[in-house]
Amino acid sequence: MQVYEAPIRDMLFNINELHEDDGFGELEGFEDFDDDLTAAILEEANKFCRDVLLPINWSGDQEGCRIENGVVRTPKGFQEAYNQFRDGGWTSLVSNPKYGGQGAPHSLAKMVEEMTCSANLSFGLYPGLTTGASIALEGYGSEDLKDFYMPRLVSGEWSGTMCLTEPHCGTDLGMLRTKAEPQDDGSYRVTGNKIFISAGDHDLTENVIHLVLARLPDAPPGVKGISLILVPKYLPNDDGSLGDYNNVKATAIEHKMGLKASATCQMSFDESKGWLVGEKHRGLEAMFLMMNTERVAVGIQGLGVGEIAYQSAVYYAKDRVQGRSLSGVKNPDGPADPIIVHPDVRRMLMTMRAYNEGSRAVSAWVSRALDAEHAAKEPEARQRAADFVALMTPVVKALFTDLGHDSAHLAVQVYGGHGYIQETGVEQFARDARIAQIYEGTNGIQALDLVGRKLPHKMGRNLRAFFHPVSNFIEDNTSDADIGPMVIALQQSFGALQLSTGHIAQKGMKDPEEAGAAATDYLKLLGFVAMGYTFAKAAQVAHRKLKEGTDEESFYKSKIITAQYFFDRLLPPATAAFMAIKAGKKSMMELPAEAF
Amino acid sequence: MQVYEAPIRDMLFNINELHEDDGFGELEGFEDFDDDLTAAILEEANKFCRDVLLPINWSGDQEGCRIENGVVRTPKGFQEAYNQFRDGGWTSLVSNPKYGGQGAPHSLAKMVEEMTCSANLSFGLYPGLTTGASIALEGYGSEDLKDFYMPRLVSGEWSGTMCLTEPHCGTDLGMLRTKAEPQDDGSYRVTGNKIFISAGDHDLTENVIHLVLARLPDAPPGVKGISLILVPKYLPNDDGSLGDYNNVKATAIEHKMGLKASATCQMSFDESKGWLVGEKHRGLEAMFLMMNTERVAVGIQGLGVGEIAYQSAVYYAKDRVQGRSLSGVKNPDGPADPIIVHPDVRRMLMTMRAYNEGSRAVSAWVSRALDAEHAAKEPEARQRAADFVALMTPVVKALFTDLGHDSAHLAVQVYGGHGYIQETGVEQFARDARIAQIYEGTNGIQALDLVGRKLPHKMGRNLRAFFHPVSNFIEDNTSDADIGPMVIALQQSFGALQLSTGHIAQKGMKDPEEAGAAATDYLKLLGFVAMGYTFAKAAQVAHRKLKEGTDEESFYKSKIITAQYFFDRLLPPATAAFMAIKAGKKSMMELPAEAF
Repeated sequence: MQVYEAPIRDMLFNINELHEDDGFGELEGFEDFDDDLTAAILEEANKFCRDVLLPINWSGDQEGCRIENGVVRTPKGFQEAYNQFRDGGWTSLVSNPKYGGQGAPHSLAKMVEEMTCSANLSFGLYPGLTTGASIALEGYGSEDLKDFYMPRLVSGEWSGTMCLTEPHCGTDLGMLRTKAEPQDDGSYRVTGNKIFISAGDHDLTENVIHLVLARLPDAPPGVKGISLILVPKYLPNDDGSLGDYNNVKATAIEHKMGLKASATCQMSFDESKGWLVGEKHRGLEAMFLMMNTERVAVGIQGLGVGEIAYQSAVYYAKDRVQGRSLSGVKNPDGPADPIIVHPDVRRMLMTMRAYNEGSRAVSAWVSRALDAEHAAKEPEARQRAADFVALMTPVVKALFTDLGHDSAHLAVQVYGGHGYIQETGVEQFARDARIAQIYEGTNGIQALDLVGRKLPHKMGRNLRAFFHPVSNFIEDNTSDADIGPMVIALQQSFGALQLSTGHIAQKGMKDPEEAGAAATDYLKLLGFVAMGYTFAKAAQVAHRKLKEGTDEESFYKSKIITAQYFFDRLLPPATAAFMAIKAGKKSMMELPAEAF
Repeated sequence: MQVYEAPIRDMLFNINELHEDDGFGELEGFEDFDDDLTAAILEEANKFCRDVLLPINWSGDQEGCRIENGVVRTPKGFQEAYNQFRDGGWTSLVSNPKYGGQGAPHSLAKMVEEMTCSANLSFGLYPGLTTGASIALEGYGSEDLKDFYMPRLVSGEWSGTMCLTEPHCGTDLGMLRTKAEPQDDGSYRVTGNKIFISAGDHDLTENVIHLVLARLPDAPPGVKGISLILVPKYLPNDDGSLGDYNNVKATAIEHKMGLKASATCQMSFDESKGWLVGEKHRGLEAMFLMMNTERVAVGIQGLGVGEIAYQSAVYYAKDRVQGRSLSGVKNPDGPADPIIVHPDVRRMLMTMRAYNEGSRAVSAWVSRALDAEHAAKEPEARQRAADFVALMTPVVKALFTDLGHDSAHLAVQVYGGHGYIQETGVEQFARDARIAQIYEGTNGIQALDLVGRKLPHKMGRNLRAFFHPVSNFIEDNTSDADIGPMVIALQQSFGALQLSTGHIAQKGMKDPEEAGAAATDYLKLLGFVAMGYTFAKAAQVAHRKLKEGTDEESFYKSKIITAQYFFDRLLPPATAAFMAIKAGKKSMMELPAEAF
């Protein structure tokens, strides 16, 4: 059973209660989004996700996409759902009001994104790619291009893609071969083949606007010779009506492990007309602007799947009766007790719950920073927010998607044999979630980005944006009557993180392979410390509210229990990553390639 | 690319070199299986698995099974492969010579089993279930039943199943409803519906012999009222030719996440004629005899998939060029270096490698004990072997399948986006491996079996069969010039295991939920200590061989490096499970069910 109701109470906790003192100060420009509007938007989004997107999630997986007469067809119900999504204004939530967007803060919009990913990850990719493309365009496109295309992308009338990967190159874009020939009228003719293009073609919008990485004839080799070209499927007339077909073709749909309702296309461009976005040979800058946004979005995908996996597992654990509680019969009128009574089932549910709540809290923190880097009053706060976002982007992407995938598999495990059967819908979560660990840069690439770029950047300035608040919090709270023990556990893990950072700084400087060998473990450790920090803070808020008196006792008590579970069960093994880091590269790199 | 060549050298290392001093003494009855025959059998099995089973692995997944006119059809090539498998004598390798078996030791046969699981897990289930059924029959059937059915099962002429699960009960068999009515001629009429029946029906053999759990009219409620009935699909005539159809029908094939070429059936029995196996109401005993054997076999499935996942990942990591090595260009004539140069790819490959070698070493140890419990000369050694098998059965099942699934996903990750596409064949490993964590008792049930039954059994006697050799080895080798540091690391983990055992003994005695809350972490810790012990021993053997002089330097050096990687990177986080165990049940069990 795929079961979903947005965790609105926890979302509001994260938006309104947890990060009050995040140090970014007041943000400007979001005055319209007061508590009432925020809650109303979450409620509306929940209704849409639960009632429109969820019912076509499993059927979409079963049916998949297909090519009919050269056009990609999405599964039954996707067109109608997209029309409602677009008409409801959901495509434009965070977009710039200049182009018709609503200018909502990320701290709100990321929660809505999480809901979409929970209810229907495949569906979410279509508008998600449009958002990514429009960010690159807004950042680097000419005013003419922006004035023409942005309103149509923001409104969801047209959709967008990012065309990066080619059969022989994904991670290493320096090798790409797609060509762009300049024309006398200032346009370009693009020719080449791309693979793995999400939403590369489909029947949800009339036109698809591709941002294509390509080489100009005078391009230097490698990544310094890549340009970004905007190539529409249909060349629009000046009034926006569709003109000539532009030889942009989906030649095949990839047969994937999951995410089957999302059309992942092989695309061919054959002298297709396009326009340069940004400067020539500097396409990667625009691509990375988009990519960084998308990496956070992909992290949210992991969280989204983790949440619906959790809820679906809880549903089953309360419904399925099997065996009796070890502490005495709990359901005397039934033939057996619901399996939620069993410790090992609890272990799985609590683990998923802690992953989700922890990820959501970190995500909310990063979202605040995404807002603050543009909207904080103080320039210093804006800088600190930007530093923090830079540091946390690979962590959010890799950690959340790893945990989301783990949660999906825990849900399968809670269902037992029934989880392995397609009809219950939980194995779909595992197959869908799997891609998030790979695309927009594999999680290994995220870890390298963290240790290779983000740590050393400006003498560790990014890291300080994270270390300072955490170490201040620890200093202030080790003797706290309520959360002291949690803070001491956090302190130990934070100490392991500091030592690991020192190890990488020292060894990695001389030998980059030492940094590479530590990367994945380091990312995990940093991510768990971040979660531990938010859990300890959350428990502190909860204790305060309980003392003040509240009619939401259950919510706050549950928050404390989940935090305690995190410190008891999840943080210690993650902290042991320090031991692995300390071991260095030797045994990892020593075996000659031919001995494998 | 699904790539496979049996790791024969490592298998021989485990059979001949690693467990020489396992303390079980001389085994009787395996004199024919000398080194030459053992090597020859492994070579032949490799050829068959690589050349016959592997080529129909991916196509079998794509095609799946179907029901045609009431009969289950296996995918293309499965019949021919089964005929070769049967004619090659592979169905009878370990079986009792009395019934036409070859009486090979498990220490050899489990290696062959691993190969089958690597090359084609779905295929392996058909003969695997036959073996399971024949073990139950041999252990509990009447002489008449055995004389008639055993030779036909051993030869692979007919196949077998175990029919346990019903829609409302899997783990909790006490609730099952299938009925068996005694007839005047001593036979029974069985009526009921079963689900998830592996190899429940198919076109590989003419007849399928079902062992069905059912209730007699006078059965007491719960698990003490379950009987085991042998029900053939076709009632055989005295000469073994097929007589009447026995109303045994596959009503549907389950739509599964993976393992699609294995027909998992919903079965209906409608007054189907059968014969009691063992005493009435005591069917669970026979079922558990079969189940324990199958649990080890399922563990081997995890290892098998882990091995082919590793090899397929290695193939790709050497073939795919992307980026440059951090320590300088390694492939100057190519556009990029093969990705095996990157530390994070190494990390994934070495992890898989260590999981496989560690699992194989533990499996070989358990297999020696499986042989010794019947064939050791000394009664005391037989008892110790039986104790050790009892302890390790849930560990082998749960740990190996968890690691196999992890390895399959690491292989997908090495392939990146190409791993998510069905055509490369690696995502199939992940989908296939997933079921092994669930069937024959979920891994959570294994952990409960370990802490709830196996630990307390006879005042911890099972555990001593494991603790004694490990603690003796540690005592003897902490100062060893070559492996001393490994042994000290092992000692720390072993200490954590001892403390954890004490925690469970103390807290679990008063409150079984405390044992339940520790179970999964404890199983993991015990399994990793077992792997650490075998790795340290393996490194010791390797050092000795290198000193003595050998023309297999690469093999022994690789063994030491892999062992070192295990101690550097894999043992420390597993050891941290102790912290989780120590935390106890409180935060796991505290949340009221309605708060989930």
